[in-house]
Amino acid sequence: MIATSTIGRRTFLAGGAGAVVAGGLLEFRSEARAQDATSLPDYAKWKDADALIVHSDKTIETKRGEIGTSIITPKEKLYIRNNVNAPPAAIVANPEDWQVEFKGVREPKTLTVAELKTMGLATVATVLQCSGNGRKYFQDRLTGDQKISGTPWTVGAAGCVLWSGVPLRAVVDTLGGAGDGAKFVTGTGGEEIPAGLDPKDLVVERSVPISNLDNVILAWEMNGKPISLAHGGPLRMIVPGYSGINNVKYVKTVALTEVETDAKIQRSSYRMHAVGEKGAPEQPSIWEQPVKSWITAPLEGAKSGRIQIAGVAFGGMNAVAGVDVSTDGGQTWQKGEFIGPDLGRFAWKVFVLPVELAPGTYSLVSRATDSEGNVQPEEPELNGGGYSHNGWRAPAVEINIV
Amino acid sequence: MIATSTIGRRTFLAGGAGAVVAGGLLEFRSEARAQDATSLPDYAKWKDADALIVHSDKTIETKRGEIGTSIITPKEKLYIRNNVNAPPAAIVANPEDWQVEFKGVREPKTLTVAELKTMGLATVATVLQCSGNGRKYFQDRLTGDQKISGTPWTVGAAGCVLWSGVPLRAVVDTLGGAGDGAKFVTGTGGEEIPAGLDPKDLVVERSVPISNLDNVILAWEMNGKPISLAHGGPLRMIVPGYSGINNVKYVKTVALTEVETDAKIQRSSYRMHAVGEKGAPEQPSIWEQPVKSWITAPLEGAKSGRIQIAGVAFGGMNAVAGVDVSTDGGQTWQKGEFIGPDLGRFAWKVFVLPVELAPGTYSLVSRATDSEGNVQPEEPELNGGGYSHNGWRAPAVEINIV
Repeated sequence: MIATSTIGRRTFLAGGAGAVVAGGLLEFRSEARAQDATSLPDYAKWKDADALIVHSDKTIETKRGEIGTSIITPKEKLYIRNNVNAPPAAIVANPEDWQVEFKGVREPKTLTVAELKTMGLATVATVLQCSGNGRKYFQDRLTGDQKISGTPWTVGAAGCVLWSGVPLRAVVDTLGGAGDGAKFVTGTGGEEIPAGLDPKDLVVERSVPISNLDNVILAWEMNGKPISLAHGGPLRMIVPGYSGINNVKYVKTVALTEVETDAKIQRSSYRMHAVGEKGAPEQPSIWEQPVKSWITAPLEGAKSGRIQIAGVAFGGMNAVAGVDVSTDGGQTWQKGEFIGPDLGRFAWKVFVLPVELAPGTYSLVSRATDSEGNVQPEEPELNGGGYSHNGWRAPAVEINIV
Repeated sequence: MIATSTIGRRTFLAGGAGAVVAGGLLEFRSEARAQDATSLPDYAKWKDADALIVHSDKTIETKRGEIGTSIITPKEKLYIRNNVNAPPAAIVANPEDWQVEFKGVREPKTLTVAELKTMGLATVATVLQCSGNGRKYFQDRLTGDQKISGTPWTVGAAGCVLWSGVPLRAVVDTLGGAGDGAKFVTGTGGEEIPAGLDPKDLVVERSVPISNLDNVILAWEMNGKPISLAHGGPLRMIVPGYSGINNVKYVKTVALTEVETDAKIQRSSYRMHAVGEKGAPEQPSIWEQPVKSWITAPLEGAKSGRIQIAGVAFGGMNAVAGVDVSTDGGQTWQKGEFIGPDLGRFAWKVFVLPVELAPGTYSLVSRATDSEGNVQPEEPELNGGGYSHNGWRAPAVEINIV
């Protein structure tokens, strides 16, 4: 199965850069290219190559030391994870003209971005994080014939970003309110599906519980600029607190639905199941992000004496409330201090702990707690997709102080 | 006098791009080039030309419609105002090696950025605004032989930026505390002074009251990246709430001093005085920014019906507490709503007011109030340098709704 998909993908790629190909829909396909793709793909050529690890043309990770301490991740450094090829760049040439169909409301209608801009305005900072961020830490624990396929992200498939757009609630209210029985917000991406393939297998269509209706924004701006094609422009459905896959790029349909979509990416992909099992609708969907943190500095040998240990921490749906930091791999802990402005409960916070370190070897780890008292586990249980890793031990920074 | 300076500057420029020239120290010199400089200078080639108005090679303004609603201004769009030529780009190649001399402390010392990084870490969002932002609105009111020289900025010599660096307080504490009688924090920029010219006439050296000691940070990072040469890297002295000139670029000396520097840029430039008078030390220095706001959207004709009026508002040293918005040039007012995260009292906030507008002509204005009850004036009194404009009437957006 894996071999077939990989071959299929390579065949598609041979069709030329302009072709819309099906490859990369499943995470294990990306992994197959991890070794031979080292430069930025055309749609992301404007990124800061020195700050990034290119796993494939659809999976690009931020280097751990590049996240900085300014809270907001600059677009040049932000990770990329696409499931299928992006639509043609032409769709971001006139972002105001992009059309979105709204369904499952009393008065269904197709609206342009220009029309959406008249309906409301909101700005929110969110942690955007690939559902598989930290998968490598699961993969490192596999034994025997266990297998977790997918990009071996460490901590860099994540950033904290400012989005600006219209609250979905304002649009729904303008269109007469939600239809009867609406239980999910379902967004559909604007990727083209190649002829002859089953759209249900390829479409990037995700459903999230309707409880998010007051949080979702349809964003046209990221970090002060129109959203680039690489990050889902001209319009992206932002579901604050939810992992990356739920934040549908180039969103072309937003529907309030009674049931979850039966697209494969919802039905069987991005599900929480044991290693070796297949994904299925009755398993939990990868939606809300769990509490998480990691160290961002120092990463390499440093001089003995005073050192500022820094990192990022977030709570997913809940504000992050505190973070403990250890220099001895979790035997003893000290409280880190959050610095800088608080960008709201969906953002991450930068923390710092000043320490005095004598020459020697140290294992730096951090462990965050959210406002509901949820604490990062030492190591979460394995799951077949390698999703939602939030253990504190595996991302340890082993460091020599001289 | 003006003619002489302009000629002097052009002569220097003829010396080639690599030469350190004295031109541009005084604001009226910049104005002389406003008409013939239309492309980005080499040190700012990486900026987004479409988002900027190039007044000269040292004065580059953000277009009003480009500021967005994400609060933070991306570096590609941020204005530039240099007083003298920037140092060679080589100084940002190894930012950790940049040396800063600390004086006026118990244990004076020269420290590298690498050493500063061990001493503390802070992140702050500030409005960075040229002291002369809005000068055009003063110039438009001149009569007879009145003259205000300098770049005719409208609203675009301002942005809101995240800085990360070491708190000056932490450095001073490490160096044994402040010396006796310290009343000012004096920062000196690393620009080279051409031989044969009096350094006091050219050095960018500014003093601010020591009451800012707990606010100042020495920043190496802006918006998540090492500070570029154009914005004062490798190290910039950030004085939150103070106008741009006080945020010394490429800072090479920080001194706690008993008196203000007698450098010309402090002694007679950036002083509040009447039109026709000369600057002098007994006049108020251009330090704290007053409460201010302006409309950023819509700027051009729009369709009748619902419209989201948006803008930015800030309080200088105080948090902005509220903003009133008018569509009839200030005859009637409605309360704007602040959106997005609150980035702290030195940041600006984005506001929005949804209105229903019938076809016709409108004059959109905004008027902010800070946490101390200070309100933007309709129009501030003229001053000779054209500094600190914060009137609400002049930046009105005159708009046709069809």
